[in-house]
Amino acid sequence: MADMSDSKINVGRRIVISVDAMGGDRGPAAVVAGISRSAKKNSEIEFILHGPQDELEKLISRRKLLKDRVIIRDAQKVVHMDDKPSQVMRQGKGTSMWSAIESVKNGEANACVSCGNTGALMALSMLRLRKLPGVNRPAIAVLWPSRNPSGSNVMLDVGADIRADENDLLQYALMGASYVRNGFNIPKPRVGLLNVGTEEFKGRPELKEAGDLMSQHADTGNFEYVGFVEGNDIPSDRVDVIVTDGFTGNIALKSAEGTAKLISGLLKEAFNHTPLSKLAAMLAYTSLRRLSKRIDPRRVNGGVFLGLNGTVVKSHGSADATSISAAVKLAVQLAQSGFNERLAARVASVGVKDKSDNEE
Amino acid sequence: MADMSDSKINVGRRIVISVDAMGGDRGPAAVVAGISRSAKKNSEIEFILHGPQDELEKLISRRKLLKDRVIIRDAQKVVHMDDKPSQVMRQGKGTSMWSAIESVKNGEANACVSCGNTGALMALSMLRLRKLPGVNRPAIAVLWPSRNPSGSNVMLDVGADIRADENDLLQYALMGASYVRNGFNIPKPRVGLLNVGTEEFKGRPELKEAGDLMSQHADTGNFEYVGFVEGNDIPSDRVDVIVTDGFTGNIALKSAEGTAKLISGLLKEAFNHTPLSKLAAMLAYTSLRRLSKRIDPRRVNGGVFLGLNGTVVKSHGSADATSISAAVKLAVQLAQSGFNERLAARVASVGVKDKSDNEE
Repeated sequence: MADMSDSKINVGRRIVISVDAMGGDRGPAAVVAGISRSAKKNSEIEFILHGPQDELEKLISRRKLLKDRVIIRDAQKVVHMDDKPSQVMRQGKGTSMWSAIESVKNGEANACVSCGNTGALMALSMLRLRKLPGVNRPAIAVLWPSRNPSGSNVMLDVGADIRADENDLLQYALMGASYVRNGFNIPKPRVGLLNVGTEEFKGRPELKEAGDLMSQHADTGNFEYVGFVEGNDIPSDRVDVIVTDGFTGNIALKSAEGTAKLISGLLKEAFNHTPLSKLAAMLAYTSLRRLSKRIDPRRVNGGVFLGLNGTVVKSHGSADATSISAAVKLAVQLAQSGFNERLAARVASVGVKDKSDNEE
Repeated sequence: MADMSDSKINVGRRIVISVDAMGGDRGPAAVVAGISRSAKKNSEIEFILHGPQDELEKLISRRKLLKDRVIIRDAQKVVHMDDKPSQVMRQGKGTSMWSAIESVKNGEANACVSCGNTGALMALSMLRLRKLPGVNRPAIAVLWPSRNPSGSNVMLDVGADIRADENDLLQYALMGASYVRNGFNIPKPRVGLLNVGTEEFKGRPELKEAGDLMSQHADTGNFEYVGFVEGNDIPSDRVDVIVTDGFTGNIALKSAEGTAKLISGLLKEAFNHTPLSKLAAMLAYTSLRRLSKRIDPRRVNGGVFLGLNGTVVKSHGSADATSISAAVKLAVQLAQSGFNERLAARVASVGVKDKSDNEE
């Protein structure tokens, strides 16, 4: 039960975050602005920044705060958003993404942050960091605004892999519970399995098997299995962790993002409609600002790759300074809690059947 | 091209809607209040109301408007929300749901509306109305608030069947396009296939095949195939129809509903937070009301069952009078446009491979 008794392992120690400066839609300037914001907020963080030396030097030299806290690692090549993961795996050496992961692999950095191509980042992370012993499919976990006291739930997988069998889903439950336990300090997270309809006879048969496995391993995994949940339960206070395959999770995540964007757009239009409503918007400014902070995807920015020998945080491709800074904050929290070591211990303790054992 | 040249077939004619008074969470009083609202708005509608005679007579007698426009059909049994569809198929005779579908089957009513158990309603509808020739899996289509001029997109399937192969998805494209053409008067609807990532190499392989089929049949089916779309495109103006399997569609729908509910809840709290924000809420009342009407799921209430010999509209289980009235309005629109006949012609003209041919 190491993960309950240990307190935060690295608190007070210097934390080094390896940052891929390239590959985001807004270029390295947004990334540098983001890490500058993080550096200002937290004096314990240092950075290794990966990308074209000249360009990065120019950007860093403009920010005093960063001068002694950033090491630049030259990488002239860039992974583009439309590059195929398989191609990047073969030809990715020399890219800023490869270089950023390498710093975690060789122990220079505690965690890696990139806002580049998700598929490529996962492929390179698997290639260089390798899967944790006992993990069959790594997963991407996201924070989801919710009614819980912490303000967030965790959902996984949201797109690392489009398929997952019952054993993979059990591993997701273990990994998600471990993430919430360490990240939110919830001793026994409630885990739900995403399905259609909460009645037993509904939904896909493989989900029934996954549910049975989760029930069996809930005690060993130190979580509470609450059964099937539906899409509308994702932001609820019924669960802390929502488990699903990467295809379904990605659709759910993006549907929710699209809905939030539609509503906030319509809300802005509503407040611009008449002089009276414009006045109202001014009066309600602080309240609306609080709301928009609460549901702003930029502030819960950062999908965490779970199940690897090292922590990788994927930021939105369109990430701005606020988003990058949020992703760095998440990487720091996870590094400080010693989360990845605990996760490894947890997966090993439950001893889920590792498919790769059979394949060899 | 019958479906383009014909104008609305039944305009000006009396429309009869068969309504299941039981099975919703709020009981028959909400249903009667809903049809009363519809009757008030549209003098051409008459109703056949199914449920326990005594109870319904009492409710109807209180509403003058309904007196000469409602026929009560006694049905003492009720399908409950937790009844299994398979059980209802065997023992459903004598329920208000069965009786409501029967009125469409025997030609007394133009369409059926029920807010009961979705699985049971689909099972009974398939059993009694039978599938349209050429249709392998019927689907449930919902309206989704969007950025399009009509204010809505259509998504299907959202839960009639948890699986769909490439031929089923093609049929959904045809049925969805036909629905939008007749319901929204859009001559050549844009159809997108829900997937993760818009790049070709992402997502499930069976979706690639479905996409190829849709490209091939777009001309015959009189729609434009726009390719893969992602969850965040569902409320966008890039598409009119979003095609997916019932499992994924249900998750997307409920995730979006959950998000909308979370945001509107937080918005209410934000406006109640300070005296100033309360004043703001009062000033912005009309604008906010317009917004909430726009995204109110009760006003786009009604999943339409597509691919059957007859029109069935499924209203939310928790439907109140506003919702029921919206579902009735949708049923009337579809009946008036002669939509189901056109849909049948369209499916037949494309001649999608009907699996039931092989199975026999």
